[in-house]
Amino acid sequence: MLDPVSWITENGQIFREFNAEIDSLNGKLRLIDQTLLPEKLVYVELDDTEAIFDAIKRLVVRGAPAIGCAAALGVAAVVRKSTLENASELLELVNNTADSLAESRPTAVNLFWALKRIKKSVAGMSDSAEIRTVLLQEGLGILEEDIAMCRAIGAHGAELLTEGMGILTHCNAGALATGDYGTALSPMYVAKENGINVKVFSDETRPLLQGSRLTAWELNKAGVDVTTICDDMAGQVMKEGKIDMVIVGADRIAANGDAANKIGTYGVAIMAKYHNIPFYVAAPYSTFDLSLKSGDEIPIEQRNADEVRKGCGKLTAPEEVNVYNPAFDVTPHGLIAGIITEKGIIRAPFEENIKKIVR
Amino acid sequence: MLDPVSWITENGQIFREFNAEIDSLNGKLRLIDQTLLPEKLVYVELDDTEAIFDAIKRLVVRGAPAIGCAAALGVAAVVRKSTLENASELLELVNNTADSLAESRPTAVNLFWALKRIKKSVAGMSDSAEIRTVLLQEGLGILEEDIAMCRAIGAHGAELLTEGMGILTHCNAGALATGDYGTALSPMYVAKENGINVKVFSDETRPLLQGSRLTAWELNKAGVDVTTICDDMAGQVMKEGKIDMVIVGADRIAANGDAANKIGTYGVAIMAKYHNIPFYVAAPYSTFDLSLKSGDEIPIEQRNADEVRKGCGKLTAPEEVNVYNPAFDVTPHGLIAGIITEKGIIRAPFEENIKKIVR
Repeated sequence: MLDPVSWITENGQIFREFNAEIDSLNGKLRLIDQTLLPEKLVYVELDDTEAIFDAIKRLVVRGAPAIGCAAALGVAAVVRKSTLENASELLELVNNTADSLAESRPTAVNLFWALKRIKKSVAGMSDSAEIRTVLLQEGLGILEEDIAMCRAIGAHGAELLTEGMGILTHCNAGALATGDYGTALSPMYVAKENGINVKVFSDETRPLLQGSRLTAWELNKAGVDVTTICDDMAGQVMKEGKIDMVIVGADRIAANGDAANKIGTYGVAIMAKYHNIPFYVAAPYSTFDLSLKSGDEIPIEQRNADEVRKGCGKLTAPEEVNVYNPAFDVTPHGLIAGIITEKGIIRAPFEENIKKIVR
Repeated sequence: MLDPVSWITENGQIFREFNAEIDSLNGKLRLIDQTLLPEKLVYVELDDTEAIFDAIKRLVVRGAPAIGCAAALGVAAVVRKSTLENASELLELVNNTADSLAESRPTAVNLFWALKRIKKSVAGMSDSAEIRTVLLQEGLGILEEDIAMCRAIGAHGAELLTEGMGILTHCNAGALATGDYGTALSPMYVAKENGINVKVFSDETRPLLQGSRLTAWELNKAGVDVTTICDDMAGQVMKEGKIDMVIVGADRIAANGDAANKIGTYGVAIMAKYHNIPFYVAAPYSTFDLSLKSGDEIPIEQRNADEVRKGCGKLTAPEEVNVYNPAFDVTPHGLIAGIITEKGIIRAPFEENIKKIVR
């Protein structure tokens, strides 16, 4: 059974489980349908291209690393199911499936990267059995690397955590967004493994509520103490002395350390600064884009107004009123205490230290 | 027709309309059902105690000044409907109605104050026709004073506004919360009367969304340019240079100028400070509580977790996860550029200047 991205069981135990002998088991891509959380925990099992495409497009699986793993293992599942024996026909299926899945999300760098790598891994092969084996190995390899990245970030980040500490996070950069412990949430999981219990506050993160729907859900399942707050309560919670540290993820980090992340992160960073609370970003070094001198060069995506007006279920703002819905913001490096990567924690001066650690 | 609190018409024209000759018209208390906004604009017409009690309790009408007006005029409507001719029986009805309505909301100072005033206005009277007339006059008097307060705040605040200015507000301290133009929104309405157009950004204000449901609705109806944003977008909108000023209301202001208001206000004030954007509080001097030395003495009400979990319609946070739901926060006076009252704008040093202006 392939159960790579969805490794959280219903009883709250965290585990990773995947099987290199894909033929010995069901061999389907198994995913939690994140669109149904937190109301229902439903797994979907997929082995055809259209269904996998749809799952990525509809955000059944989201989070750049998780999408990469799902797409790579998705190709392996599709090819496994096929009865084709001719190697060149099978390679055509690999390429067509990969090219199709690459259209499912427009800006997911990990998606393109994983599919390119999957195609390359079997290019020119003439044995259909070997193609099937290598595809699975490559998909699992991508997953393994992702797991190693998460664990390394978690280990470095966990060094900052002590018993009873209060940590605020925004959006979801956790298990549901990666193949393992996540990025921003990984230090909290690793701390728990080490017997250190922290108290996490999770901003609900409007408009799509990934914080309350996903972060609160997965931390709670894993037995980590988590409290949901509305985004506009973060300042008050900081003022009350409940927060000792902020850890968030990142979508893109410029050469000077400016970090783009889900909308609202910037405001949290300003409030943390005001309260002298250290603000950390956790991200793999694949997130760094050294071609960007500063965060000013990162474009801010504007999304559909109905996410704000109707995202919760019923109409929460008048149809005829303007809505401004930027999906990301950029936190300037001056507000950042450190960037937790798989190679260690980068601190100021960021430009200099990022150059040293990121190739 | 009594149409005191709900003076916004469907075609977007703002007007106030009430009639001292209550007997010549329908004579019911007429309110917009704010619980149905923005999906439906429904007026309710009330003249019995239970229905008025229910309307206040269920937040059909909310906002301290609006509740005071509605309760006072509600007593007048109930007494008008009664066929009692005996004055002492009628006074008993006045007192019972007022005492009953006083139980509808626990902490609404204006509610208690208005009902006490209504009772006192007819105490000891022996003519039933006079009782009915005086009750209505007193109710309309409370409304008139509220209108005058709103207009005066609006006039002082409007002096700060110039053509094209961007203004951020949080929650609803507008027409729907008062008998007229509101407090925080009054400067924007007065500016519009004076031909000055501003661009308002309205935080949606989780968990109850008074900003997107009510503020955006009423400003839009009145033809004021308004854009709804999620609370976690305020920092980004400020960074983009779209905001020149913040104006919010207040629930209680301490002797040193610290101001309690809807949760999230404090965070907005911190972000405004970071961007060098002046942050104003608009409130009548009845909001000042000089018995409180500082905002530290203002208790913060904790509200039901389901407002956060289920407030939008569907479940947005897991049932089993902790929720922290403070309803208010306190903005320290150091973050406040000025307090706009009906007597003028109070600026630092606040303690000294508040003493001068507030009795």
